[in-house]
Amino acid sequence: MRVGTIVPPLVGSIRRAAFFCRSAMEPGGGVAMVQGASRGIGLEFVRQLLEKKEKGQVIATCRDPSRASFLQELKGKYTERLDILPLDVTDESSIKASTKSINERYGSLNLLINASGVLSIPGVLQPETTLNKVEKSSLMFAYEVNAAGPTLVIKVFFSNSFSVRLSSHVALLKLGGQTASERKFSIVANLSARVSSIGDNGLGGWHSYRSSKTALNQLTKNISLEFARRKDPIVCILLHPGTVDTDLSKPFQRGVPEGKLFTPEFSVGKLLAVIEGTEASDNGKFFAWDGQQIPW
Amino acid sequence: MRVGTIVPPLVGSIRRAAFFCRSAMEPGGGVAMVQGASRGIGLEFVRQLLEKKEKGQVIATCRDPSRASFLQELKGKYTERLDILPLDVTDESSIKASTKSINERYGSLNLLINASGVLSIPGVLQPETTLNKVEKSSLMFAYEVNAAGPTLVIKVFFSNSFSVRLSSHVALLKLGGQTASERKFSIVANLSARVSSIGDNGLGGWHSYRSSKTALNQLTKNISLEFARRKDPIVCILLHPGTVDTDLSKPFQRGVPEGKLFTPEFSVGKLLAVIEGTEASDNGKFFAWDGQQIPW
Ligand SMILES: NC(=O)c1ccc[n+]([C@@H]2O[C@H](COP(=O)([O-])OP(=O)(O)OC[C@H]3O[C@@H](n4cnc5c(N)ncnc54)[C@H](OP(=O)(O)O)[C@@H]3O)[C@@H](O)[C@H]2O)c1
Ligand SMILES: NC(=O)c1ccc[n+]([C@@H]2O[C@H](COP(=O)([O-])OP(=O)(O)OC[C@H]3O[C@@H](n4cnc5c(N)ncnc54)[C@H](OP(=O)(O)O)[C@@H]3O)[C@@H](O)[C@H]2O)c1
Repeated sequence: MRVGTIVPPLVGSIRRAAFFCRSAMEPGGGVAMVQGASRGIGLEFVRQLLEKKEKGQVIATCRDPSRASFLQELKGKYTERLDILPLDVTDESSIKASTKSINERYGSLNLLINASGVLSIPGVLQPETTLNKVEKSSLMFAYEVNAAGPTLVIKVFFSNSFSVRLSSHVALLKLGGQTASERKFSIVANLSARVSSIGDNGLGGWHSYRSSKTALNQLTKNISLEFARRKDPIVCILLHPGTVDTDLSKPFQRGVPEGKLFTPEFSVGKLLAVIEGTEASDNGKFFAWDGQQIPW
Repeated sequence: MRVGTIVPPLVGSIRRAAFFCRSAMEPGGGVAMVQGASRGIGLEFVRQLLEKKEKGQVIATCRDPSRASFLQELKGKYTERLDILPLDVTDESSIKASTKSINERYGSLNLLINASGVLSIPGVLQPETTLNKVEKSSLMFAYEVNAAGPTLVIKVFFSNSFSVRLSSHVALLKLGGQTASERKFSIVANLSARVSSIGDNGLGGWHSYRSSKTALNQLTKNISLEFARRKDPIVCILLHPGTVDTDLSKPFQRGVPEGKLFTPEFSVGKLLAVIEGTEASDNGKFFAWDGQQIPW
């Protein structure tokens, strides 16, 4: 991602268009998976991957497909191109089961987006305003879902030859896709948040959420280093979507300045442009929706 | 901490000496607490605080005082100046109980050092070399001890007026000490590790340990911002002790270059100098044993 130098003003839409013209998913269209796709940003990723592209498979995972009505609606329209699978990041057996299905059906993945995440659940996860509101159970819940969760998804997908015991298979993400691809690598994108940045932290608060995403940043960096060391054709990046109008941000939208609360459509359009613009040298980096790098 | 500019070459020892001549603990000596003091770096902090200073109380906490033979030895020598209290960072009731004792006995604290930490426990916590060795239980264990642990200690000490229900008390750390003090603030120092730095991460591995300490860095930054916002006279810093010859590093000492494996004595001497050199503007910063700031 080269930002602010060689990139013309209209780059967002140009590059977004490019994503659907000459990405790893063209011409066969490739296989993309969105994890945490029942609602919000994850759901919008699925929608745009289906609507803006002419071909390519999309796998949407969520905790309970039977209750994911928006996904089911999309499935009605894109019967052949969309698979919906159950996956709860806190339940490793569900991660293994979905890996197995995907491996059997597609054998490879070109893009994995980990969109799941939690910020506030009354009585379970606190968006703490002060230290005295910090509860261990809240910290641990955030760590389980936001830090361990996406990491275990990548682990199981990446090393499924070990865990799922497929006889003649290299790891799912290892393959560059079934189809010829201009891009020589697959992409793993983990949804982080600007508030995970320690360097950028000027306000404090949200101890559980912030520190869980900070841990995710470190884990993603770690994984990116391992991929690079092994020369695996996988690039791992972290994304900040901006403040986006979803269930997650609902309780906190009051203070958001005019024009700074994005629609999922806008944010995901930008994030797909960032993904499309990803270069091998971006492995392990943390980008905002506008392509700017975020400090650790 | 001003490093590399106004500081003469011998600053380490000069400033260390200063720590024991005109620190917040002089003339009354003040009250320092070392949490995680049964062994290693924590134990050495206790030893130096007792041996190098002429007065001042030291509270050493550990999981099981009856088995902390080195601490008991020190207690034999410094009967009046040393208290040993049980505290397990994973057991909030033990944190509350020790807070209560300390509050009843001293009413304030000038220095709190959180030295506890875990890196590898066979079958429980993995020092992972690759992603496929990452286990959820290992991640969660590290988060509980290394990230949540010190945070809950600070929470309970800082807000004990809420949690311990002391009738006429402001929070323990809030007081500048019972004695007149040149320094206008108390210090909380959390033992982190250079490997927690995302920016400095060039090797990967140790997913559980690294990311738990990265989470601790974010939590410490968060707490420091809250202290600053409330104008509490408390400065919070993070410390990297270097690679120190303790049980924690034993299994990993083979690759350590000549001269880079410190004795606990050397490391703690340097860390006390860093603590002594701490200024109000250092709140929320991360320092190595030599006073250099570590990037996030
Ligand atoms: N919205 C923002 O302003 C904002 C800002 C910065 C970062 N982010 C990040 O962007 C990502 C998407 O957020 P969003 O705004 O779209 O949130 P959202 O609307 O609340 O959606 C969260 C998604 O995560 C899923 N999820 C929760 N726990 C899960 C688990 N254990 N296993 C699998 N999936 C689980 C939810 O599934 P269920 O329907 O089953 O609950 C839902 O699909 C998150 O990682 C969030 O931290 C959002
Ligand atoms: N040694 C190094 O090279 C190095 C490098 C970077 C950072 N550090 C950090 O420096 C700190 C001290 O490390 P060290 O080398 O002295 O390690 P160590 O010799 O293994 O001592 C660890 C200490 O933590 C205590 N502890 C473990 N779990 C605890 C719990 N649940 N509650 C309270 N205390 C607990 C241990 O108590 P028990 O005796 O009861 O087990 C012990 O006193 C750690 O935070 C470590 O991460 C060390």
